[in-house]
Amino acid sequence: MSDISCELCKTLGGVLLWEDDFLRIIRVESQEYVGFCRVILKQHVVEMTDLNLAERARLMKVVYAVETVLRELYQPTKINLASLGNIVPHLHWHIIPRFQDDPHFPNPIWGEVLRPAKPRPAMPDAELKQRIALQLASTSSL
Amino acid sequence: MSDISCELCKTLGGVLLWEDDFLRIIRVESQEYVGFCRVILKQHVVEMTDLNLAERARLMKVVYAVETVLRELYQPTKINLASLGNIVPHLHWHIIPRFQDDPHFPNPIWGEVLRPAKPRPAMPDAELKQRIALQLASTSSL
Repeated sequence: MSDISCELCKTLGGVLLWEDDFLRIIRVESQEYVGFCRVILKQHVVEMTDLNLAERARLMKVVYAVETVLRELYQPTKINLASLGNIVPHLHWHIIPRFQDDPHFPNPIWGEVLRPAKPRPAMPDAELKQRIALQLASTSSL
Repeated sequence: MSDISCELCKTLGGVLLWEDDFLRIIRVESQEYVGFCRVILKQHVVEMTDLNLAERARLMKVVYAVETVLRELYQPTKINLASLGNIVPHLHWHIIPRFQDDPHFPNPIWGEVLRPAKPRPAMPDAELKQRIALQLASTSSL
């Protein structure tokens, strides 16, 4: 199932970090938000409750794996999780490490900008890929 | 575990619709967003990955139940799910029915306002409570 007008059916949507037949993990190419990742379903499905229970669990297991890796790598003040899809109604999760000195904190990243972005060192994609693969392997039987 | 300075440890945070020993479901008292609910953990826990796997699943099962009920009752254009907690770092999920003519659509509700709010009929709390209880009962063994 795909939709030819849907951006997430047509494009990867970022730097590919991991994928299987069900979903992919990408890193968002953002200067302001290092570590910002998305977990994107491969099928064009709109809402979590359009998935069956096993599919919801499979998707969230990957969201949690990404959250775990991002917490370890970046020690953020907070993790923000969101599945919105108002513009692109194709199921995808935002996993955003947030920091007290980031441009919007404590606002959501879609809210008012409060300060300029500070440069923050980003982990190499190879490191992110390796950590995510290891994290998923360690939870694959759960 | 509770934090005496935390708003969600001290107050319900809205109109109580359902609760057990682990979490509560509240309706947000919003004129602009009818059906806007939150699922709030009772313990003062910060991130999803601070919970064990069974607790994560238990929490998300309730989020999905609320999503199901809100979709049935309001037929929204989109459901928005988010766990942010930058201001109140106590695990809670926003479940927000979104409509093409709501004040922010397609922006997140934390983004720029694009139009005035239109009155939208809200279901009585008694109806919401009953539907949520039934939905949770029907998925309790899953």
